[in-house]
Amino acid sequence: MDLFEKYESNVRGYIRSFPTIFVKAQNATMWDHTGKTYIDFFGGAGSLNYGHNDPAIKRAIIEYIERDGVTNALDKATDAKYHFIEKLQNTILKPRGLDYKIQFVGPTGTNAVETALKLARKVKQRSKIVAFTNAYHGHTLGALAVTGNEFYHDDYYGVPLNVTKMPFDNYFDSENQMDSIDMMRHYYEDASSGYEVPAGIIVETIQGEGGINIASVEWLKKLEKMCRDLDILLIVDDIQMGNGRTGNFFSFERAGIKPDIVTVSKSIGTGLPMAIVLMRPEIDQWSPGEHTGTFRGNSLAFVAGAKALERWDNDTFSKEILAKGAKVEQRMKAIAARFPQHIGDVRGLGMIWGIESPVEGFCGQISREGFERGLIAETAGATDQVIKFLAPLTISEAELDKGLDILEASITAAAAKHPINE
Amino acid sequence: MDLFEKYESNVRGYIRSFPTIFVKAQNATMWDHTGKTYIDFFGGAGSLNYGHNDPAIKRAIIEYIERDGVTNALDKATDAKYHFIEKLQNTILKPRGLDYKIQFVGPTGTNAVETALKLARKVKQRSKIVAFTNAYHGHTLGALAVTGNEFYHDDYYGVPLNVTKMPFDNYFDSENQMDSIDMMRHYYEDASSGYEVPAGIIVETIQGEGGINIASVEWLKKLEKMCRDLDILLIVDDIQMGNGRTGNFFSFERAGIKPDIVTVSKSIGTGLPMAIVLMRPEIDQWSPGEHTGTFRGNSLAFVAGAKALERWDNDTFSKEILAKGAKVEQRMKAIAARFPQHIGDVRGLGMIWGIESPVEGFCGQISREGFERGLIAETAGATDQVIKFLAPLTISEAELDKGLDILEASITAAAAKHPINE
Amino acid sequence: MDLFEKYESNVRGYIRSFPTIFVKAQNATMWDHTGKTYIDFFGGAGSLNYGHNDPAIKRAIIEYIERDGVTNALDKATDAKYHFIEKLQNTILKPRGLDYKIQFVGPTGTNAVETALKLARKVKQRSKIVAFTNAYHGHTLGALAVTGNEFYHDDYYGVPLNVTKMPFDNYFDSENQMDSIDMMRHYYEDASSGYEVPAGIIVETIQGEGGINIASVEWLKKLEKMCRDLDILLIVDDIQMGNGRTGNFFSFERAGIKPDIVTVSKSIGTGLPMAIVLMRPEIDQWSPGEHTGTFRGNSLAFVAGAKALERWDNDTFSKEILAKGAKVEQRMKAIAARFPQHIGDVRGLGMIWGIESPVEGFCGQISREGFERGLIAETAGATDQVIKFLAPLTISEAELDKGLDILEASITAAAAKHPINE
Amino acid sequence: MDLFEKYESNVRGYIRSFPTIFVKAQNATMWDHTGKTYIDFFGGAGSLNYGHNDPAIKRAIIEYIERDGVTNALDKATDAKYHFIEKLQNTILKPRGLDYKIQFVGPTGTNAVETALKLARKVKQRSKIVAFTNAYHGHTLGALAVTGNEFYHDDYYGVPLNVTKMPFDNYFDSENQMDSIDMMRHYYEDASSGYEVPAGIIVETIQGEGGINIASVEWLKKLEKMCRDLDILLIVDDIQMGNGRTGNFFSFERAGIKPDIVTVSKSIGTGLPMAIVLMRPEIDQWSPGEHTGTFRGNSLAFVAGAKALERWDNDTFSKEILAKGAKVEQRMKAIAARFPQHIGDVRGLGMIWGIESPVEGFCGQISREGFERGLIAETAGATDQVIKFLAPLTISEAELDKGLDILEASITAAAAKHPINE
Repeated sequence: MDLFEKYESNVRGYIRSFPTIFVKAQNATMWDHTGKTYIDFFGGAGSLNYGHNDPAIKRAIIEYIERDGVTNALDKATDAKYHFIEKLQNTILKPRGLDYKIQFVGPTGTNAVETALKLARKVKQRSKIVAFTNAYHGHTLGALAVTGNEFYHDDYYGVPLNVTKMPFDNYFDSENQMDSIDMMRHYYEDASSGYEVPAGIIVETIQGEGGINIASVEWLKKLEKMCRDLDILLIVDDIQMGNGRTGNFFSFERAGIKPDIVTVSKSIGTGLPMAIVLMRPEIDQWSPGEHTGTFRGNSLAFVAGAKALERWDNDTFSKEILAKGAKVEQRMKAIAARFPQHIGDVRGLGMIWGIESPVEGFCGQISREGFERGLIAETAGATDQVIKFLAPLTISEAELDKGLDILEASITAAAAKHPINE
Repeated sequence: MDLFEKYESNVRGYIRSFPTIFVKAQNATMWDHTGKTYIDFFGGAGSLNYGHNDPAIKRAIIEYIERDGVTNALDKATDAKYHFIEKLQNTILKPRGLDYKIQFVGPTGTNAVETALKLARKVKQRSKIVAFTNAYHGHTLGALAVTGNEFYHDDYYGVPLNVTKMPFDNYFDSENQMDSIDMMRHYYEDASSGYEVPAGIIVETIQGEGGINIASVEWLKKLEKMCRDLDILLIVDDIQMGNGRTGNFFSFERAGIKPDIVTVSKSIGTGLPMAIVLMRPEIDQWSPGEHTGTFRGNSLAFVAGAKALERWDNDTFSKEILAKGAKVEQRMKAIAARFPQHIGDVRGLGMIWGIESPVEGFCGQISREGFERGLIAETAGATDQVIKFLAPLTISEAELDKGLDILEASITAAAAKHPINE
Repeated sequence: MDLFEKYESNVRGYIRSFPTIFVKAQNATMWDHTGKTYIDFFGGAGSLNYGHNDPAIKRAIIEYIERDGVTNALDKATDAKYHFIEKLQNTILKPRGLDYKIQFVGPTGTNAVETALKLARKVKQRSKIVAFTNAYHGHTLGALAVTGNEFYHDDYYGVPLNVTKMPFDNYFDSENQMDSIDMMRHYYEDASSGYEVPAGIIVETIQGEGGINIASVEWLKKLEKMCRDLDILLIVDDIQMGNGRTGNFFSFERAGIKPDIVTVSKSIGTGLPMAIVLMRPEIDQWSPGEHTGTFRGNSLAFVAGAKALERWDNDTFSKEILAKGAKVEQRMKAIAARFPQHIGDVRGLGMIWGIESPVEGFCGQISREGFERGLIAETAGATDQVIKFLAPLTISEAELDKGLDILEASITAAAAKHPINE
Repeated sequence: MDLFEKYESNVRGYIRSFPTIFVKAQNATMWDHTGKTYIDFFGGAGSLNYGHNDPAIKRAIIEYIERDGVTNALDKATDAKYHFIEKLQNTILKPRGLDYKIQFVGPTGTNAVETALKLARKVKQRSKIVAFTNAYHGHTLGALAVTGNEFYHDDYYGVPLNVTKMPFDNYFDSENQMDSIDMMRHYYEDASSGYEVPAGIIVETIQGEGGINIASVEWLKKLEKMCRDLDILLIVDDIQMGNGRTGNFFSFERAGIKPDIVTVSKSIGTGLPMAIVLMRPEIDQWSPGEHTGTFRGNSLAFVAGAKALERWDNDTFSKEILAKGAKVEQRMKAIAARFPQHIGDVRGLGMIWGIESPVEGFCGQISREGFERGLIAETAGATDQVIKFLAPLTISEAELDKGLDILEASITAAAAKHPINE
């Protein structure tokens, strides 16, 4: 590990939470260089929904490489890209009635977000974008402007320009809180409020990094309606919550809404770098080459992604996700019941779950205890008040059980180290 | 091709210049779905310096996948990353006396640039960054702010904040032009000039997208000296010109300067998405996790990149680059001599060359003629006034000769279509 | 009037509402060039609280001019300034326990606001300022940024930088609205809300231009407490509501709060250009000359202002204001009762009153009817939904009665022209 | 003086350079409370071109007050305003062929500048404004953005948005400097320079605060031509250099140019607060009331200003200015010849002159020596390297001689305190 300390920037993070060298991974299990195994409840922060090294995907990639397929084509056409587009349209978009065009962007989520925001501003010829409290959309300057956590900001980066922050659903957590969509509507309909109608509103239907905050179906529908009424583009950032995480392919399906723009990344390439932006055709007002980037044509990710989408040919996968999610929920709630003073809330949906603790440092302790016992699990939320479950959707029953057992043991150990003084 | 038109965003660009579907590539040769071959003088815009599908690199990647190496590890430690760091330090940095720490960033050049700018601002606690006329650094908002071409900008994206544009070396192209570094020094030493000392200055030693504009060694040395004198960080964006393009590994080696920060991407992962930022250790003032991203741990790129760096174990590769470059220069100048009214300038260095034409539309025509004849070559410059040579450094003599022959034929054909009326 | 149309900019405004040439004025009566008289319920938008051409003030000014007193001294010391400072401290500030230093700024309200905002930002070394919905603070870029009405804004002026708009007291006008101070506190205590603690909060205790919106005493106290708790500077813009308008000298006295910074202008110079900023001594962190301006030493205004402050030597003036205000309230409410469908609300305090109408164009019609009948009265609010009473505090009983009679007649006439169709 | 120290903000400036209380002033002579007299070479920083308390002006003001003329009318029409407009058009604008409309703005120079910049941006629908090195245009945020001196800026005020600084004529002071207008033209004609064509360019034909820097006639003509060619509005800030300072009424007359917008303040109201913006009629695209302010109708200034303009009924005044200026020049150059090591340059035009010293602190010392001996004279330039002559244009021969004598004595005394060590 000395080499990393000596030569890698101080910015390195997860290596500090999980200080070992990983050498192998299969589905939800990882091996380090000493041979120790870990159950992966972190899942590459949502980029490994299809598990590590899925055999079918491996085979597809290797075949492509062996036959000298073009690996980097910028945005020239390749057979790899052709098949990916075809598969995404036929398997995912058309069956859901989503008439979207696809933009291949630089293969990072933050690039997809920047693209979506630029496009919304260009199309509407308005500068303002609305984002929500606790939102997380990335770290390049345009995306950072819509990301809430002040930890990522610095006065000298330049002000987060042209962004209005609004309270996420249920943000104030109080009886008499005002619905934030009523707030916005009031502002935008009052010419003297000091609030301009934005070009677009960017929302995560479930805030992952922000602490597993789930927007209600009612709120999402109301948000969509306001956007339609006031001619605002609705942008769903589905980078972490899409790709089946909630049981459906897109996280917004549960609300029955149709965003104008959707950002997709992480698992869309099965963990290989890839990001796309989906948009209604009439919004696709780009000039050729107006937003470019070298790695927009990462063919290995196209090949892998197309293969992975086969899981969505029927509804088996979706059902499995929900079944596993139900088990996670049941186990977590049982654990929570054992530690009522340490655990304030268990919340989630499909295969995204969080355990929130009012005890400072408790969730960080769980993560450390877990690592010791062979579990990879990270915290979320501005004060790391949540321990997050983001395991591969393909996790086996055995892996899941083992992981949940370790989680329970870790919580028990953490609770012992954080006694409640009453 | 209908599928792309129907489903891919209008933003698609190179597919319009080279309208066919590519299915195979080997070193500097590409095959389309009809079996037609093309010599690749474009080289993935600088990301394929080691050619398409190098056999040794292919083998390394496949082996890694077959043994279930971790493909996406965020910034957890993996053996793939370990070996890449070790190789980069031992083969490249140490022999050049460059004591740099490495930051793995989101795998796009624009992310590397954003990271460098954020870091410079954070470290110096100043907002301003200087960039140059015709600079190209990427398309996310922070990087876009330092990119000159107005085609990429829109009023509603928000103003390019905190950026001062200065003339690149020899920009004004006139007898009595003032040296831009004297200009800057004068501004910064005058408290009433309205110019603040910036946190950093970002420079391409050769502007590729800007039109193959080559900064002189003298100017680069003078720039470095001013940065030292006035406590400004010198950032070299070596994304397109690094990785051996100029004959040396880094493009700034020819000037004998040592930047404070260097951005590297494109060929560093042999065409697989990867980007890093190199920085002097004392500048590495990040907090853990302060700049993150999902795909910072693209192991396949680490494996491929480490393998590619073996070419730098001795100076053979460097010599080959210079030898091939000399041939390119000789051929291009001979062609230019045949078309004195169509070709205004031939300029370059190592394996980066450009032919500039004063005739509007001429270089675009060359590109089209080339495609027809089996050559992939793109234009550069704000008005596409340059045809650019960016072939793989590994291109074979045969491929090179064939490509140059097609280039000459294409120029001849283009000249016939653009007669000069005197 | 042709001369004005031909040579004065289209921006001219009140000349359109009151299209005649005024040649004489005494207390609350104005004469035009035809000899017609008007009762002035507009009072120079709050700059004529002491009436037009008060005899004692006239005498003081003339004496000063006749003895060749220095009229423009920049910020050199003059006897005129000496006496003004002395009078303001002894008669106003000390008796109220307000330990403020005085800054003489460029003689406009907008300059006082700019100064206050610059000072708050400089002292706290934070960029953000909070302002409220419907706020009006002036038209230079810094002040415009905190002014709500979009009519005054243009995309190309530059974004209203570093300003957060918050709902004014009772803004949402709904049962379940959240207290805006609870909102702010929640935001500022959540590091991931996307809201930074501001340098200062600027507030009008009663929004005049915004539509005579009155902040409750409870809300103002709560605002002050939050500012103290979170180390935010509380700035009261008392430009229109100060100088006795509400019965007390400062409008914030009714709430028992002590702002950190107070902007004062309009009647402080009895209608001659003058503006000052009051600040707690520990906030006075300016360097000499850091905020300057040519007309900071308008001696005629100092002489006039010092004379006017004599009215505050005892509490007679204050009692008169309240007595007159009570009459205004009574008459207005009686009028409102006659027109329940045209008049939605009558609200005010001291000598600031507004009649709000839900009928579009109704208040503009009242203004026009009034002008015809010899009354100067203007509208307020983003949609001109309020007719505003801002008469000189010194208005005679006879003038007041006459004015209110004309107002009633004008409302009657306006109502006839805006029949309600049910 | 204790009262000022105790109660006036630390920002007070000139009171520190001239620490006494002034009680009387006549033409170019001031009296303090001890009876000591001073010759005024500062002239209210250009606002007292017509001298202190001109008898004819005094009489006009007193008459207006005595007949109860309206003193504050916002922008309602008054006879005072009528006569001012008429006089300005007939005596100044028409004879010079200047077809300008007049906008009355808040009575400060900074407000005139803000108005000009807002108007230019609104009319051209572009954000950028060009201003020059060492420019001084005021202290509200919009005007501050075009003011060079960093002393007036603070990181937390917000970035000086949308402003490009360009070198003033002869700025680099070197043989091979590039003409700044050629620079701009090059930038604006290159789509990839990173420089956008601005809405307007604001320029002082002579920079007063910046150190008496005189733009050449040739440069001003060339600037105007570029503005015409590239559809940029030319804004002359004539606040300090207008009103006859250079011999002509407007400072730009000597170059034979016709700006699109002109800002005028200071002496236009003879030292009483007033500011106007002149603009070509087709640029007058304001909506009614779009830029407002309480003190736009300062009638005393209209009355005084109209009276003062009578001096321009024939060319006598202009000739007097030039004659006095010639004497100033001669005396100053003679003094400079006596102190070749202390005085580097004497420069000026009409009645604006500056003596520049390469010796640090020398000019400040002259100012202090002068004050002791009965002279009010201030420094200019970013490092106070210039002593500035801005006496009333109406100064008597006797006052002028006396002042120049004191100046010479003060320079002699200052030189003795700053011996040159060689």
